Amino acid sequence: MYSVAVQRLIQQISKFPGLGPRSGRRIALHLMQNKQAALDPFMSSLVEVANTVKFCRDCGNLDTSEVCTICTSEKRDKNTICVVAGVDDVWAMERAGVYNGLYHVLGGVLSALDGVGPSQLRLQPLQQRVSCYPPREVIIALSATLEGQTTAYYVVDLLRPHNIENITRLAHGVPVGGELDYLDEGTISAALQSRQVFAL
Amino acid sequence: MYSVAVQRLIQQISKFPGLGPRSGRRIALHLMQNKQAALDPFMSSLVEVANTVKFCRDCGNLDTSEVCTICTSEKRDKNTICVVAGVDDVWAMERAGVYNGLYHVLGGVLSALDGVGPSQLRLQPLQQRVSCYPPREVIIALSATLEGQTTAYYVVDLLRPHNIENITRLAHGVPVGGELDYLDEGTISAALQSRQVFAL
Repeated sequence: MYSVAVQRLIQQISKFPGLGPRSGRRIALHLMQNKQAALDPFMSSLVEVANTVKFCRDCGNLDTSEVCTICTSEKRDKNTICVVAGVDDVWAMERAGVYNGLYHVLGGVLSALDGVGPSQLRLQPLQQRVSCYPPREVIIALSATLEGQTTAYYVVDLLRPHNIENITRLAHGVPVGGELDYLDEGTISAALQSRQVFAL
Repeated sequence: MYSVAVQRLIQQISKFPGLGPRSGRRIALHLMQNKQAALDPFMSSLVEVANTVKFCRDCGNLDTSEVCTICTSEKRDKNTICVVAGVDDVWAMERAGVYNGLYHVLGGVLSALDGVGPSQLRLQPLQQRVSCYPPREVIIALSATLEGQTTAYYVVDLLRPHNIENITRLAHGVPVGGELDYLDEGTISAALQSRQVFAL
Protein backbone atom coordinates (compact mmCIF):
# COMPACT_ATOMS: atom_id res chain seq x y z
CA MET A 1 0.00 0.00 0.00
CA TYR A 2 2.90 2.39 0.69
CA SER A 3 6.22 2.47 -1.13
CA VAL A 4 9.24 1.40 0.94
CA ALA A 5 10.45 4.98 1.43
CA VAL A 6 7.04 6.15 2.67
CA GLN A 7 6.77 3.16 4.99
CA ARG A 8 10.18 3.88 6.50
CA LEU A 9 9.28 7.55 6.97
CA ILE A 10 6.04 6.61 8.76
CA GLN A 11 7.88 4.17 11.01
CA GLN A 12 10.47 6.78 11.94
CA ILE A 13 7.88 9.44 12.76
CA SER A 14 5.84 6.89 14.74
CA LYS A 15 8.82 6.37 17.02
CA PHE A 16 9.13 10.03 17.96
CA PRO A 17 8.34 10.65 21.64
CA GLY A 18 4.60 10.82 22.26
CA LEU A 19 3.62 9.67 18.77
CA GLY A 20 2.29 6.37 17.41
CA PRO A 21 1.48 4.76 14.07
CA ARG A 22 -1.67 6.86 13.62
CA SER A 23 0.01 10.23 14.14
CA GLY A 24 3.02 8.94 12.18
CA ARG A 25 0.84 8.29 9.11
CA ARG A 26 -0.92 11.61 9.52
CA ILE A 27 2.28 13.65 9.76
CA ALA A 28 4.01 11.77 6.92
CA LEU A 29 1.00 12.41 4.69
CA HIS A 30 0.89 16.06 5.72
CA LEU A 31 4.55 16.45 4.74
CA MET A 32 4.13 14.66 1.41
CA GLN A 33 1.00 16.55 0.46
CA ASN A 34 2.51 19.93 1.29
CA LYS A 35 5.91 19.63 -0.30
CA GLN A 36 6.63 23.31 -0.79
CA ALA A 37 4.85 24.64 2.27
CA ALA A 38 5.97 22.05 4.81
CA LEU A 39 8.39 19.38 3.61
CA ASP A 40 11.02 21.56 1.93
CA PRO A 41 11.38 24.18 4.70
CA PHE A 42 11.33 21.39 7.30
CA MET A 43 14.16 19.57 5.51
CA SER A 44 16.31 22.67 5.32
CA SER A 45 15.76 23.35 9.04
CA LEU A 46 16.77 19.80 9.85
CA VAL A 47 19.90 20.06 7.74
CA GLU A 48 20.84 23.36 9.37
CA VAL A 49 20.25 22.01 12.88
CA ALA A 50 22.14 18.80 12.11
CA ASN A 51 25.11 20.79 10.85
CA THR A 52 25.25 23.45 13.54
CA VAL A 53 23.86 22.15 16.82
CA LYS A 54 26.31 20.75 19.34
CA PHE A 55 26.50 20.11 23.06
CA CYS A 56 28.12 22.91 25.08
CA ARG A 57 31.66 21.96 26.13
CA ASP A 58 31.11 23.33 29.63
CA CYS A 59 27.52 22.67 30.67
CA GLY A 60 26.22 20.09 28.17
CA ASN A 61 23.39 22.33 26.93
CA LEU A 62 22.49 22.26 23.21
CA ASP A 63 23.49 25.27 21.13
CA THR A 64 25.14 26.24 17.88
CA SER A 65 28.45 27.30 19.45
CA GLU A 66 31.18 25.31 21.21
CA VAL A 67 30.30 27.07 24.47
CA CYS A 68 26.57 27.84 24.78
CA THR A 69 24.89 31.25 24.95
CA ILE A 70 24.09 30.83 28.63
CA CYS A 71 27.68 29.95 29.60
CA THR A 72 29.14 32.86 27.61
CA SER A 73 26.52 35.44 28.63
CA GLU A 74 27.91 38.39 30.61
CA LYS A 75 24.59 38.81 32.37
CA ARG A 76 24.50 35.39 34.03
CA ASP A 77 25.71 34.86 37.57
CA LYS A 78 28.71 32.55 37.20
CA ASN A 79 28.74 31.75 40.91
CA THR A 80 25.63 29.57 40.76
CA ILE A 81 25.36 26.23 38.96
CA CYS A 82 22.03 24.47 38.57
CA VAL A 83 22.42 20.71 38.02
CA VAL A 84 19.66 19.28 35.78
CA ALA A 85 19.05 15.91 34.13
CA GLY A 86 18.46 17.00 30.52
CA VAL A 87 18.39 19.84 28.05
CA ASP A 88 14.59 19.87 28.32
CA ASP A 89 15.03 20.82 31.99
CA VAL A 90 17.26 23.75 30.99
CA TRP A 91 14.50 24.87 28.62
CA ALA A 92 11.85 24.47 31.33
CA MET A 93 13.91 26.52 33.82
CA GLU A 94 14.57 29.21 31.20
CA ARG A 95 10.87 29.43 30.34
CA ALA A 96 10.15 30.12 34.00
CA GLY A 97 12.50 33.08 33.56
CA VAL A 98 13.54 33.41 37.21
CA TYR A 99 16.96 31.76 37.22
CA ASN A 100 20.02 33.75 36.27
CA GLY A 101 22.92 31.37 36.94
CA LEU A 102 24.61 28.68 34.88
CA TYR A 103 23.55 25.07 34.30
CA HIS A 104 25.12 21.66 34.31
CA VAL A 105 23.32 19.02 32.26
CA LEU A 106 23.96 15.49 33.55
CA GLY A 107 22.44 13.83 30.49
CA GLY A 108 20.12 11.58 32.51
CA VAL A 109 19.68 10.18 35.99
CA LEU A 110 21.13 7.07 37.65
CA SER A 111 18.85 4.13 36.94
CA ALA A 112 19.61 0.49 37.70
CA LEU A 113 16.59 -0.55 35.59
CA ASP A 114 17.73 1.32 32.48
CA GLY A 115 21.37 0.44 33.12
CA VAL A 116 22.49 4.05 33.59
CA GLY A 117 25.52 4.19 35.89
CA PRO A 118 27.62 7.16 37.08
CA SER A 119 30.00 6.82 34.12
CA GLN A 120 27.19 7.54 31.64
CA LEU A 121 26.40 10.87 33.27
CA ARG A 122 28.43 14.07 32.96
CA LEU A 123 29.61 13.85 36.57
CA GLN A 124 33.34 14.13 35.98
CA PRO A 125 32.95 17.36 33.98
CA LEU A 126 30.92 18.69 36.93
CA GLN A 127 33.69 17.87 39.40
CA GLN A 128 36.31 19.45 37.13
CA ARG A 129 34.18 22.54 36.67
CA VAL A 130 33.58 22.91 40.39
CA SER A 131 37.25 22.47 41.27
CA CYS A 132 38.46 24.94 38.59
CA TYR A 133 35.86 27.65 39.26
CA PRO A 134 34.34 26.97 42.69
CA PRO A 135 30.75 28.32 42.66
CA ARG A 136 29.09 29.84 45.71
CA GLU A 137 25.99 27.70 45.24
CA VAL A 138 25.04 24.48 43.48
CA ILE A 139 21.30 23.94 43.08
CA ILE A 140 20.29 20.32 42.47
CA ALA A 141 17.18 20.53 40.25
CA LEU A 142 16.40 16.86 39.59
CA SER A 143 12.97 15.25 39.42
CA ALA A 144 11.35 14.22 42.69
CA THR A 145 11.34 10.57 41.56
CA LEU A 146 13.27 7.69 43.07
CA GLU A 147 15.93 7.87 40.34
CA GLY A 148 16.11 11.66 40.50
CA GLN A 149 16.60 11.69 44.25
CA THR A 150 19.15 8.87 44.16
CA THR A 151 21.10 10.87 41.60
CA ALA A 152 20.75 13.99 43.75
CA TYR A 153 22.33 12.26 46.77
CA TYR A 154 25.08 10.87 44.55
CA VAL A 155 25.87 14.35 43.17
CA VAL A 156 25.89 15.88 46.66
CA ASP A 157 28.33 13.17 47.83
CA LEU A 158 30.62 13.96 44.91
CA LEU A 159 30.50 17.69 45.62
CA ARG A 160 31.10 17.44 49.37
CA PRO A 161 34.96 17.43 49.17
CA HIS A 162 34.87 20.65 47.14
CA ASN A 163 33.65 22.72 50.11
CA ILE A 164 30.91 24.57 48.26
CA GLU A 165 29.20 27.10 50.49
CA ASN A 166 25.63 26.14 49.57
CA ILE A 167 24.32 22.94 48.05
CA THR A 168 20.56 23.29 47.73
CA ARG A 169 17.65 21.49 46.09
CA LEU A 170 14.33 22.70 44.70
CA ALA A 171 11.54 22.97 47.29
CA HIS A 172 8.87 20.28 47.49
CA GLY A 173 5.32 21.54 47.93
CA VAL A 174 1.92 22.18 46.46
CA PRO A 175 2.23 22.99 42.72
CA VAL A 176 0.93 26.47 41.89
CA GLY A 177 -2.67 26.00 40.74
CA GLY A 178 -2.78 22.52 42.31
CA GLU A 179 -5.67 21.33 44.43
CA LEU A 180 -4.94 19.66 47.76
CA ASP A 181 -7.58 17.07 46.99
CA TYR A 182 -5.56 15.67 44.13
CA LEU A 183 -2.15 15.68 45.81
CA ASP A 184 -0.45 12.57 47.13
CA GLU A 185 0.45 12.21 50.82
CA GLY A 186 4.19 12.67 50.18
CA THR A 187 3.69 16.10 48.64
CA ILE A 188 1.26 17.24 51.34
CA SER A 189 3.61 16.05 54.07
CA ALA A 190 6.59 17.81 52.43
CA ALA A 191 4.56 21.00 51.97
CA LEU A 192 3.47 20.90 55.61
CA GLN A 193 7.00 20.38 56.89
CA SER A 194 8.37 23.26 54.81
CA ARG A 195 5.48 25.60 55.69
CA GLN A 196 6.31 29.26 55.67
CA VAL A 197 5.26 32.33 57.63
CA PHE A 198 2.62 34.37 55.78
CA ALA A 199 4.37 37.40 54.32
CA LEU A 200 2.07 40.37 54.99
CA MET B 1 17.22 30.37 24.92
CA TYR B 2 17.24 28.46 21.59
CA SER B 3 19.30 29.31 18.55
CA VAL B 4 17.30 30.59 15.56
CA ALA B 5 17.59 27.28 13.70
CA VAL B 6 16.34 25.28 16.68
CA GLN B 7 13.49 27.72 17.22
CA ARG B 8 12.40 27.40 13.59
CA LEU B 9 12.58 23.62 13.78
CA ILE B 10 10.40 23.56 16.91
CA GLN B 11 7.87 25.90 15.29
CA GLN B 12 7.66 23.71 12.19
CA ILE B 13 7.17 20.50 14.16
CA SER B 14 4.59 22.22 16.39
CA LYS B 15 2.48 22.92 13.31
CA PHE B 16 2.29 19.26 12.26
CA PRO B 17 -1.26 17.87 12.52
CA GLY B 18 -2.11 16.88 16.08
CA LEU B 19 1.02 18.41 17.63
CA GLY B 20 1.60 21.57 19.66
CA PRO B 21 4.50 23.55 21.11
CA ARG B 22 5.10 21.02 23.88
CA SER B 23 5.37 17.99 21.60
CA GLY B 24 7.27 20.16 19.10
CA ARG B 25 9.97 20.89 21.65
CA ARG B 26 10.08 17.28 22.77
CA ILE B 27 10.48 15.87 19.25
CA ALA B 28 13.04 18.51 18.20
CA LEU B 29 15.10 17.71 21.28
CA HIS B 30 14.80 13.97 20.63
CA LEU B 31 16.11 14.48 17.09
CA MET B 32 18.99 16.72 18.18
CA GLN B 33 20.03 14.46 21.02
CA ASN B 34 20.00 11.33 18.86
CA LYS B 35 21.76 12.58 15.77
CA GLN B 36 23.00 9.24 14.47
CA ALA B 37 20.12 7.07 15.64
CA ALA B 38 17.22 9.35 14.72
CA LEU B 39 18.08 12.61 12.96
CA ASP B 40 20.35 11.31 10.18
CA PRO B 41 18.16 8.35 9.07
CA PHE B 42 15.08 10.58 9.29
CA MET B 43 16.69 13.20 7.06
CA SER B 44 17.65 10.64 4.42
CA SER B 45 14.10 9.23 4.43
CA LEU B 46 12.70 12.71 3.96
CA VAL B 47 15.06 13.43 1.08
CA GLU B 48 14.17 10.14 -0.58
CA VAL B 49 10.44 10.70 -0.17
CA ALA B 50 10.69 14.30 -1.38
CA ASN B 51 12.55 13.16 -4.50
CA THR B 52 10.43 10.16 -5.39
CA VAL B 53 6.87 10.56 -4.18
CA LYS B 54 4.32 11.91 -6.63
CA PHE B 55 0.58 11.92 -7.13
CA CYS B 56 -0.73 9.16 -9.41
CA ARG B 57 -1.69 10.55 -12.82
CA ASP B 58 -4.89 8.50 -12.89
CA CYS B 59 -6.30 8.28 -9.37
CA GLY B 60 -4.44 10.97 -7.38
CA ASN B 61 -3.00 8.50 -4.87
CA LEU B 62 0.55 9.06 -3.57
CA ASP B 63 3.24 6.71 -4.83
CA THR B 64 6.72 6.68 -6.28
CA SER B 65 5.65 5.99 -9.85
CA GLU B 66 3.75 8.11 -12.37
CA VAL B 67 0.84 5.65 -12.18
CA CYS B 68 0.41 4.16 -8.69
CA THR B 69 0.79 0.52 -7.65
CA ILE B 70 -2.97 0.12 -7.20
CA CYS B 71 -3.82 1.48 -10.67
CA THR B 72 -1.19 -0.71 -12.38
CA SER B 73 -1.87 -3.87 -10.36
CA GLU B 74 -3.12 -6.81 -12.43
CA LYS B 75 -5.01 -8.14 -9.45
CA ARG B 76 -7.32 -5.17 -8.96
CA ASP B 77 -10.80 -5.05 -10.44
CA LYS B 78 -10.66 -2.20 -12.96
CA ASN B 79 -14.45 -2.06 -13.25
CA THR B 80 -14.96 -0.54 -9.82
CA ILE B 81 -13.87 2.95 -8.77
CA CYS B 82 -14.09 4.09 -5.16
CA VAL B 83 -14.25 7.89 -4.85
CA VAL B 84 -12.55 9.16 -1.67
CA ALA B 85 -11.65 12.59 -0.32
CA GLY B 86 -7.95 12.07 0.47
CA VAL B 87 -4.97 9.76 0.32
CA ASP B 88 -5.52 8.97 4.02
CA ASP B 89 -8.89 7.49 3.03
CA VAL B 90 -7.17 5.24 0.44
CA TRP B 91 -4.83 4.08 3.21
CA ALA B 92 -7.77 3.47 5.58
CA MET B 93 -9.65 1.43 2.94
CA GLU B 94 -6.52 -0.58 2.12
CA ARG B 95 -5.91 -1.31 5.81
CA ALA B 96 -9.41 -2.78 5.99
CA GLY B 97 -8.23 -5.12 3.23
CA VAL B 98 -11.65 -5.90 1.75
CA TYR B 99 -11.73 -3.66 -1.31
CA ASN B 100 -10.18 -4.83 -4.54
CA GLY B 101 -11.08 -2.12 -7.06
CA LEU B 102 -9.45 1.19 -8.03
CA TYR B 103 -9.67 4.56 -6.30
CA HIS B 104 -10.22 8.14 -7.26
CA VAL B 105 -8.88 10.73 -4.82
CA LEU B 106 -10.79 14.03 -4.99
CA GLY B 107 -8.23 15.91 -2.90
CA GLY B 108 -10.81 17.26 -0.45
CA VAL B 109 -14.53 17.92 -0.15
CA LEU B 110 -16.63 20.89 -1.22
CA SER B 111 -16.72 23.44 1.57
CA ALA B 112 -18.11 26.95 1.38
CA LEU B 113 -16.49 27.78 4.73
CA ASP B 114 -12.98 26.75 3.65
CA GLY B 115 -13.51 28.16 0.14
CA VAL B 116 -13.18 24.80 -1.62
CA GLY B 117 -15.17 24.81 -4.85
CA PRO B 118 -15.60 22.12 -7.56
CA SER B 119 -12.57 23.42 -9.50
CA GLN B 120 -10.22 22.66 -6.60
CA LEU B 121 -11.23 18.99 -6.56
CA ARG B 122 -10.15 16.34 -9.07
CA LEU B 123 -13.64 16.15 -10.57
CA GLN B 124 -12.72 16.69 -14.23
CA PRO B 125 -10.16 13.83 -14.18
CA LEU B 126 -12.93 11.64 -12.72
CA GLN B 127 -15.30 12.52 -15.57
CA GLN B 128 -12.58 11.88 -18.17
CA ARG B 129 -11.70 8.59 -16.55
CA VAL B 130 -15.30 7.45 -16.42
CA SER B 131 -15.96 8.40 -20.05
CA CYS B 132 -12.77 6.74 -21.36
CA TYR B 133 -13.09 3.51 -19.34
CA PRO B 134 -16.68 3.25 -18.11
CA PRO B 135 -16.69 1.29 -14.82
CA ARG B 136 -19.48 -1.05 -13.78
CA GLU B 137 -19.68 0.54 -10.33
CA VAL B 138 -18.66 3.78 -8.66
CA ILE B 139 -18.64 3.67 -4.84
CA ILE B 140 -18.83 7.08 -3.18
CA ALA B 141 -16.86 6.69 0.07
CA LEU B 142 -16.99 10.19 1.53
CA SER B 143 -17.38 11.14 5.18
CA ALA B 144 -20.90 11.26 6.59
CA THR B 145 -20.52 14.96 7.34
CA LEU B 146 -22.43 17.85 5.78
CA GLU B 147 -19.52 18.66 3.44
CA GLY B 148 -18.93 15.02 2.58
CA GLN B 149 -22.54 14.40 1.71
CA THR B 150 -22.84 17.63 -0.31
CA THR B 151 -19.79 16.51 -2.29
CA ALA B 152 -21.32 13.04 -2.71
CA TYR B 153 -24.48 14.47 -4.29
CA TYR B 154 -22.37 16.73 -6.51
CA VAL B 155 -20.28 13.77 -7.72
CA VAL B 156 -23.39 11.66 -8.37
CA ASP B 157 -24.87 14.52 -10.44
CA LEU B 158 -21.68 14.72 -12.50
CA LEU B 159 -21.65 10.97 -13.09
CA ARG B 160 -25.32 10.66 -14.05
CA PRO B 161 -24.84 11.44 -17.80
CA HIS B 162 -22.23 8.66 -18.04
CA ASN B 163 -24.81 5.90 -17.53
CA ILE B 164 -22.87 3.95 -14.96
CA GLU B 165 -24.67 0.77 -13.95
CA ASN B 166 -24.23 1.19 -10.18
CA ILE B 167 -23.47 4.30 -8.19
CA THR B 168 -23.39 3.33 -4.53
CA ARG B 169 -22.38 4.81 -1.19
CA LEU B 170 -20.99 3.26 2.02
CA ALA B 171 -23.69 2.03 4.42
CA HIS B 172 -24.58 4.09 7.47
CA GLY B 173 -25.03 2.17 10.69
CA VAL B 174 -23.69 1.17 14.09
CA PRO B 175 -19.85 1.09 14.02
CA VAL B 176 -18.47 -2.36 14.82
CA GLY B 177 -17.68 -2.37 18.54
CA GLY B 178 -19.87 0.69 19.08
CA GLU B 179 -22.39 0.95 21.90
CA LEU B 180 -25.93 2.10 21.11
CA ASP B 181 -25.86 4.24 24.22
CA TYR B 182 -23.19 6.50 22.77
CA LEU B 183 -24.60 6.80 19.24
CA ASP B 184 -26.40 9.88 17.95
CA GLU B 185 -30.01 9.73 16.77
CA GLY B 186 -29.06 10.09 13.10
CA THR B 187 -26.91 6.96 13.16
CA ILE B 188 -29.49 4.91 15.07
CA SER B 189 -32.24 6.00 12.69
CA ALA B 190 -30.06 5.15 9.63
CA ALA B 191 -29.13 1.77 11.13
CA LEU B 192 -32.78 1.00 11.83
CA GLN B 193 -33.91 1.92 8.33
CA SER B 194 -31.20 -0.23 6.70
CA ARG B 195 -31.79 -3.16 9.06
CA GLN B 196 -30.97 -6.56 7.63
CA VAL B 197 -32.34 -10.06 7.97
CA PHE B 198 -30.31 -12.17 10.41
CA ALA B 199 -28.18 -14.54 8.33
CA LEU B 200 -28.40 -17.94 10.03
